[in-house]
Amino acid sequence: MRLELRGVDGLPEITPGMDLGGLIAKHAAPLHSGDVVVVTQKVVSKEEGRLRDLATVVVTERASQLAVRYQVDPRMVQAVLDESVRVIRDDRVLLVETHHGFICVNAGIDKSNVPGSDTVSLLPLNCNASALRLRERIASVSGVDVAIIISDTFGSAWRHGLCDIALAAAGMPLVLEREHEDDFGVPLPAGMINFAIADELAGAAELIMGKARRLPAVVVSGLSFPSPSDISA
Amino acid sequence: MRLELRGVDGLPEITPGMDLGGLIAKHAAPLHSGDVVVVTQKVVSKEEGRLRDLATVVVTERASQLAVRYQVDPRMVQAVLDESVRVIRDDRVLLVETHHGFICVNAGIDKSNVPGSDTVSLLPLNCNASALRLRERIASVSGVDVAIIISDTFGSAWRHGLCDIALAAAGMPLVLEREHEDDFGVPLPAGMINFAIADELAGAAELIMGKARRLPAVVVSGLSFPSPSDISA
Repeated sequence: MRLELRGVDGLPEITPGMDLGGLIAKHAAPLHSGDVVVVTQKVVSKEEGRLRDLATVVVTERASQLAVRYQVDPRMVQAVLDESVRVIRDDRVLLVETHHGFICVNAGIDKSNVPGSDTVSLLPLNCNASALRLRERIASVSGVDVAIIISDTFGSAWRHGLCDIALAAAGMPLVLEREHEDDFGVPLPAGMINFAIADELAGAAELIMGKARRLPAVVVSGLSFPSPSDISA
Repeated sequence: MRLELRGVDGLPEITPGMDLGGLIAKHAAPLHSGDVVVVTQKVVSKEEGRLRDLATVVVTERASQLAVRYQVDPRMVQAVLDESVRVIRDDRVLLVETHHGFICVNAGIDKSNVPGSDTVSLLPLNCNASALRLRERIASVSGVDVAIIISDTFGSAWRHGLCDIALAAAGMPLVLEREHEDDFGVPLPAGMINFAIADELAGAAELIMGKARRLPAVVVSGLSFPSPSDISA
């Protein structure tokens, strides 16, 4: 069994309203049924106009206080609070639960690779819907059923360094139930069966993407889980 | 840029004292300089005899009490405590810090893919040394400088599903410092630079390994970080 990952070269800088799915279909060709296309959150947010001009943010007292503690821009803190349903930790980092249910630092908001010094990117409003939309657009342009993962960079408790993980997927499961027995036919404990394969794929794609290579999409070929057309998105 | 992963077929069941590095060199051929070989902790532990017969475990009062709470084998709980320097959580799971410094459930001890109903596998005593030893053995047999990652399956806080991560690496960094500026030349925050590339590689390899395919080693080709010979192990 072989797995191959390749970067999608030649994508232009993505701006709101562009046809990201169509561009990926064009630049990633040839795509094959069963391929998984990992796309960074950043370009999906740009396409969807999920950008915020910090100049327009009205800062609350709470955001001001947190900003003093972290020595960061209070408008950024307010933008984080606006995307969150609760603050999990506010000591060394601002760890929040987003309205989607993601537990992450700064609600996934950041300035990197966003043009304009006062503009930040927000996570897509509905990452699952974004993944499904990209999947359908690529199918309509290329005629090929691929799976889509929208990836983002997260830290992890008790581990050094960042990994890319999956915010959402379409055409494949986020978590796959693996073999129920080991090589000796002994049942595996329930806690040993479910693998976050979309996270593992997102992390693998990051190895190609890096942070400044203009490679916001990666095609993965050779996976052996049920083909996307067999799985409801 | 392309990345290719392939499983190492044909490895026999590994037992204590076997020449794991030599077997990998043989079955993974041809290897190339710059390849990364991801090897599961399980086969390294088997090779090193890091197995424990639960029948020989002397159970303390503390282990007995915890075992009642979890409804598990008190000898298993004792084995976990014996490998740990502290217990982080003992409510729903037994989350410990191992003597290596890993924070994980059950100190990385488990029964899966270990022959004998009363035998469990322990983590290698010194995972870094094990990785270095495998790297040197493969170089000596095949004449090729590869990097080694020893992988294991961990859960992650705030995420569903398991991922394989890196317990240790030799010939490559566990964490890689990425680009310091984004595509627009804007400096990236310090917290956005360090990527756990060995974890991402271990996760990618898991996609091929699964849990019961007798594929405890995977070769990754095409990575672009500095070649292993340029990095001190």
